[in-house]
Amino acid sequence: MSWHRKHLLDIESLTVEEITTVLDTARAFKAVGQRAIKKVPALRGKTVVNLFVEPSTRTRTSFELSEQRLSADIINFNTEASSLKKGESLKDTARNLEALNIDFIVIRHSASGAPHFLARVLNASVINAGDGAHEHPTQALLDMFTIREKKGRIAGLNVTILGDILYSRVARSDIWALTKLGAKVTLCGPSTLVPRIFEQMGCRVTHDVDEAIRDADIINLLRIQHERQRKSMFPSLNEYSSLFGLTKARLARTKPDALIMHPGPINRGVEIDSEIADCGRSLVLQQVTNGLAVRMAVLFLVNGGKGPQEVAA
Amino acid sequence: MSWHRKHLLDIESLTVEEITTVLDTARAFKAVGQRAIKKVPALRGKTVVNLFVEPSTRTRTSFELSEQRLSADIINFNTEASSLKKGESLKDTARNLEALNIDFIVIRHSASGAPHFLARVLNASVINAGDGAHEHPTQALLDMFTIREKKGRIAGLNVTILGDILYSRVARSDIWALTKLGAKVTLCGPSTLVPRIFEQMGCRVTHDVDEAIRDADIINLLRIQHERQRKSMFPSLNEYSSLFGLTKARLARTKPDALIMHPGPINRGVEIDSEIADCGRSLVLQQVTNGLAVRMAVLFLVNGGKGPQEVAA
Amino acid sequence: MSWHRKHLLDIESLTVEEITTVLDTARAFKAVGQRAIKKVPALRGKTVVNLFVEPSTRTRTSFELSEQRLSADIINFNTEASSLKKGESLKDTARNLEALNIDFIVIRHSASGAPHFLARVLNASVINAGDGAHEHPTQALLDMFTIREKKGRIAGLNVTILGDILYSRVARSDIWALTKLGAKVTLCGPSTLVPRIFEQMGCRVTHDVDEAIRDADIINLLRIQHERQRKSMFPSLNEYSSLFGLTKARLARTKPDALIMHPGPINRGVEIDSEIADCGRSLVLQQVTNGLAVRMAVLFLVNGGKGPQEVAA
Repeated sequence: MSWHRKHLLDIESLTVEEITTVLDTARAFKAVGQRAIKKVPALRGKTVVNLFVEPSTRTRTSFELSEQRLSADIINFNTEASSLKKGESLKDTARNLEALNIDFIVIRHSASGAPHFLARVLNASVINAGDGAHEHPTQALLDMFTIREKKGRIAGLNVTILGDILYSRVARSDIWALTKLGAKVTLCGPSTLVPRIFEQMGCRVTHDVDEAIRDADIINLLRIQHERQRKSMFPSLNEYSSLFGLTKARLARTKPDALIMHPGPINRGVEIDSEIADCGRSLVLQQVTNGLAVRMAVLFLVNGGKGPQEVAA
Repeated sequence: MSWHRKHLLDIESLTVEEITTVLDTARAFKAVGQRAIKKVPALRGKTVVNLFVEPSTRTRTSFELSEQRLSADIINFNTEASSLKKGESLKDTARNLEALNIDFIVIRHSASGAPHFLARVLNASVINAGDGAHEHPTQALLDMFTIREKKGRIAGLNVTILGDILYSRVARSDIWALTKLGAKVTLCGPSTLVPRIFEQMGCRVTHDVDEAIRDADIINLLRIQHERQRKSMFPSLNEYSSLFGLTKARLARTKPDALIMHPGPINRGVEIDSEIADCGRSLVLQQVTNGLAVRMAVLFLVNGGKGPQEVAA
Repeated sequence: MSWHRKHLLDIESLTVEEITTVLDTARAFKAVGQRAIKKVPALRGKTVVNLFVEPSTRTRTSFELSEQRLSADIINFNTEASSLKKGESLKDTARNLEALNIDFIVIRHSASGAPHFLARVLNASVINAGDGAHEHPTQALLDMFTIREKKGRIAGLNVTILGDILYSRVARSDIWALTKLGAKVTLCGPSTLVPRIFEQMGCRVTHDVDEAIRDADIINLLRIQHERQRKSMFPSLNEYSSLFGLTKARLARTKPDALIMHPGPINRGVEIDSEIADCGRSLVLQQVTNGLAVRMAVLFLVNGGKGPQEVAA
């Protein structure tokens, strides 16, 4: 079990062993989060820049807290894509940050590939916190962590991802992780948002929600991203909710131990009934807790940590 | 002398002994603030979220600095009430924060009772940094600390609160604290903003400013809150200033040792003459200094500290 | 070698020995920046307020990181000049901050002299991070550091500053520093932006760019400040670029060891060809790196540090 990467750019390029190393390291950090003093000195004297070129509160907060608990120095650099007009400008911004002797850049950007671009031009370690509709690798890792923690395994599980797959970086990263780890992935949603082309990623595609969730062990609901959709693809929230929302009636027809996930923030009454979101089968808040442990693990590993055996130190 | 509360939600529910414990603990922390190294490790490895759903610079800065000096990890979470439309959404936001293993939420919110709501649904400690027109308990505690420091006692003092009482959470918290501690409280201001109903809180109500301040030991001026008032209640700033502003002429008719307080930021020339604000009888800046010590004390106590005897450690 | 100042307000009032003490201390801190743990405890338990009344990302980030690496507690206080309408209000804001037992105020303000005003009314140490078109002393110090590091000396060098001199606080601070340290300074740019009056500061003024850079050892390009210029003084970016931009053709006519500086952020294709900005003769990113060391040195010295011999401790 070992890790040799300097960056975390995507799930697509990770091996099964690498994913497992992150999950095992995260398990060690989750234990740290339950101590009275939730800090370790692993990144003391190191500097992390959170370069968020797209607005985010939840992911940024999760990263920032992870960094604090690793004792890093932190610079939050929030900017608008409009003030970083060209790739050239992103490069200049990043190089200027790097000239401040920083060690890590956590980047969220509306352009797919922005983290990969930075990894090519910088010496700092780059962590992708979401790039366009491409990938959101730490979300997928925290999803895998949560599934493994609850189900004991990932291989052989039926996992249904429900919602706007086409524009979702979470879906892409989850699909890569789930298929690598041996789960059977079903995608479901409006046909405009769940095209057949995803079958090429090894998924089953269906537009019948009841059929999609019937045998699922995990139902992963995606947030309806109002801002990323063109109107023509998506008639109304009411229509979405009645056709694809997870209601009590629909849930009653799933396996009794099927668990519900959602990357948050949830739209109560749209993709999920409010009552279900808070029930014992919902893992939503546990995903948030695990996100912290996973992000600590990722920062720890790209900083040269080898794996969970080093965390206790 | 002891403290057993997990939250600080209001002054109304505190006992005299609890208030005194906060003030004595704050005195110990004030001494810390005068050391060369103004930090103690009391909250090391603990996480505080400053959840400010209403804009604030001064109170947030005071809390943030208190938290830093207690060595806490800090997340500043500023948001707009508009993006937290319903109580349900505040609950979701808070639960998501709590899922990050945080220990304290310091909340400012435009809705009265928001901190009490959070205290019911969360495991974290909740500190009210101002909720609607309801209470602002740390402001009242710093006011009590400042009065006691300057006058040696609170019982038996004549304290006049002058201004917009109706919409003021500072006034409500101060009234609770002052009456519990045995001061005689006079309220004064325009009749639309100082209704007789406040007599039920044990206060004297008058609309004659000269009569209100004649025998006062403490004159506590409230900031005119432009944004919280309906036009019909309040003709103009000029009129307010001439009828109720603390001018040199008015101050000359008070007791020579009457002291002036104001929660800040002051509107020079509106509720107070500029010259008076800077004179030796003004405690405005000492209130700011004491606010830091009081907030350190509150965080220390809700974290399980028992009282001032533990601060030196 | 020694330092006795409590504030850093400008370059104009510094002696050569004081400037040299900053540069030597910065050299010691630059070595700290190359360690695995880039932190020293020099400002532990001290509080710095970054009071930025004018927007800034780069300078604020550089200061914030300097403060973190000195282990200071940090409050970022960003505000709009519009909410601080009068000198009186800046005074109230600053006094309220000072009442929080802070030790340092780093101020950027659109009004020339704002830092000097604060230094008169506060007990805290004041550091000027740029005041109007007056001075930007830490920029000049990092420029001097960079020149000395690359050329081994400053006395006797030909330094050409090219661009909008009239509205540039960087130009003013650089001119003071360079002339004090014995460089020969040439100013060049459109005649409306480089008036003859600068000859009184000991500079040569020319409006012929080729003549200005021919014998230069250092060419310091200033950023074109769109916002600070009246239209009538400045026809178009294209015209500026063709008349005064540093192109490959122009660079070919300079001394082969002439080096290029720029305070950033650069406008590629306006004041400098994109290719030149990234070439080996460009010191732009080294200036950023050195800015960190210089700001650490300044904070260290105004905190009572005597000079570089104390940094290792």
